[in-house]
Amino acid sequence: MAGGPVRVERWRVTIVGLGLIGASAGMRLRAEGHWVGGMDRDPRHLDRALSLGAVDAEVAGRPGEADVVLLAAPPRANIEWVRHPWQAPLVIDTSSVKEPVVQAAREAGVPFVGGHPLAGRAEGGPDAARPDLFQGRTFLLTAAGGPMEQARAVAQALGALPVEIGAAEHDRAVARTSHLVYLMSCALAEVLRDSPAQLLGPAAHEMLRVATSPTGLWEEILSLNAAAVGEAATALAEEIRRLSSADGEDLARARRAAEQLRRRWSDAG
Amino acid sequence: MAGGPVRVERWRVTIVGLGLIGASAGMRLRAEGHWVGGMDRDPRHLDRALSLGAVDAEVAGRPGEADVVLLAAPPRANIEWVRHPWQAPLVIDTSSVKEPVVQAAREAGVPFVGGHPLAGRAEGGPDAARPDLFQGRTFLLTAAGGPMEQARAVAQALGALPVEIGAAEHDRAVARTSHLVYLMSCALAEVLRDSPAQLLGPAAHEMLRVATSPTGLWEEILSLNAAAVGEAATALAEEIRRLSSADGEDLARARRAAEQLRRRWSDAG
Repeated sequence: MAGGPVRVERWRVTIVGLGLIGASAGMRLRAEGHWVGGMDRDPRHLDRALSLGAVDAEVAGRPGEADVVLLAAPPRANIEWVRHPWQAPLVIDTSSVKEPVVQAAREAGVPFVGGHPLAGRAEGGPDAARPDLFQGRTFLLTAAGGPMEQARAVAQALGALPVEIGAAEHDRAVARTSHLVYLMSCALAEVLRDSPAQLLGPAAHEMLRVATSPTGLWEEILSLNAAAVGEAATALAEEIRRLSSADGEDLARARRAAEQLRRRWSDAG
Repeated sequence: MAGGPVRVERWRVTIVGLGLIGASAGMRLRAEGHWVGGMDRDPRHLDRALSLGAVDAEVAGRPGEADVVLLAAPPRANIEWVRHPWQAPLVIDTSSVKEPVVQAAREAGVPFVGGHPLAGRAEGGPDAARPDLFQGRTFLLTAAGGPMEQARAVAQALGALPVEIGAAEHDRAVARTSHLVYLMSCALAEVLRDSPAQLLGPAAHEMLRVATSPTGLWEEILSLNAAAVGEAATALAEEIRRLSSADGEDLARARRAAEQLRRRWSDAG
């Protein structure tokens, strides 16, 4: 990736983990003219990724050399893979928690930039992959010793909008905007467990949705971000207690906050 | 309403409060051949209800005689109106809290049955009214001294499915299935107030929706059901704290509860 405008180069990319994120990235990078090698501990994912055209070939044996290594496995696996002796000028991941993987990369001396694409679908796995998954979406990047400009170029090649953020700031923020939202949905499911279903309204039905997503990834995320999640959970629990005896002004203030957040979310696309 | 099959009679119905619920009930009851008189403290609601055909005429001056009185004002207003010296064999309300209104009706010696139609729309007011608002929906009925059979006939005339439930049981159940869901959405809005909007996902956006609904009605509901809401809030706060250090099995259990609740909700229609 050294020298000249990045867009005219043909990168050799290694993608580790060929689920929704990894296979979508492979599809897009191949469409952009890059060469993509893939690996996945599940041979069915690898086969599907090959037949869907998400990768050019399996990276077999002892992987190492590449222009870009993209770690798209679950967070704990990414933390293991970032310690691999890569012969690559840039290693980037896609985990939704950043501090543990940044720390592992620094310890291993890897030229790493943390990545977190804000993109997803209800379905997982390579069959749900699509080359435009990242189109127009924010791709958070966390400085960690690797070449940031090349990481931005990778995010842009995926169609995404790179935005830099520090690891600690990232993990504190997503503890509230994402991890807490999942936790709250699970807590509601527990509290409603024995309630008559006919008394549930559409709002409850909506709020229980995210608790039905696969638990394996979430368990990793919550435990890897335990301190920030614990802090966010305490704040939410206190707000619930406080608002349970709310007056009209308290509710009006919360309403304005909700309206503003939803409007800013829609504006942010 | 005495004697003979109810369906061949023509009732004189007085509806107090001509917002979404009252105007929708008026439209449907008129379509069923009943005579509907209406009143609302807001003269614009009365005018709209008249021009939309939701009522036959204003009940002016000193209202009293009717076959059925339907209280469809906000809960605190219904509690006042239930004490009115009605000359009617059945007074029924539509409040989403039952104990305070049942208690007021018993004290006043009114032939009352508590009602709570599980129907609504995002928009309020008579302009949002539609005659099929209650079609196929559950209409909860709470015994309180009035004629239950006639109350069932009213619910059925509205197209709804009457289901009997005790006042205390009702208020405890909806504290979780409805009031807590609103409260949780408000609490999330407060906790996310300063979060970067681009980090919000679709789940957060969904969960903030109910917090954007008008606060006036909710303030009445939460304060009228304060004990049960407080208990539900404490249970939710404890679940959130507990799950913030959840293991995979905890999350899997919550996931199964969420899936089951959503399935039962869909089955319940």
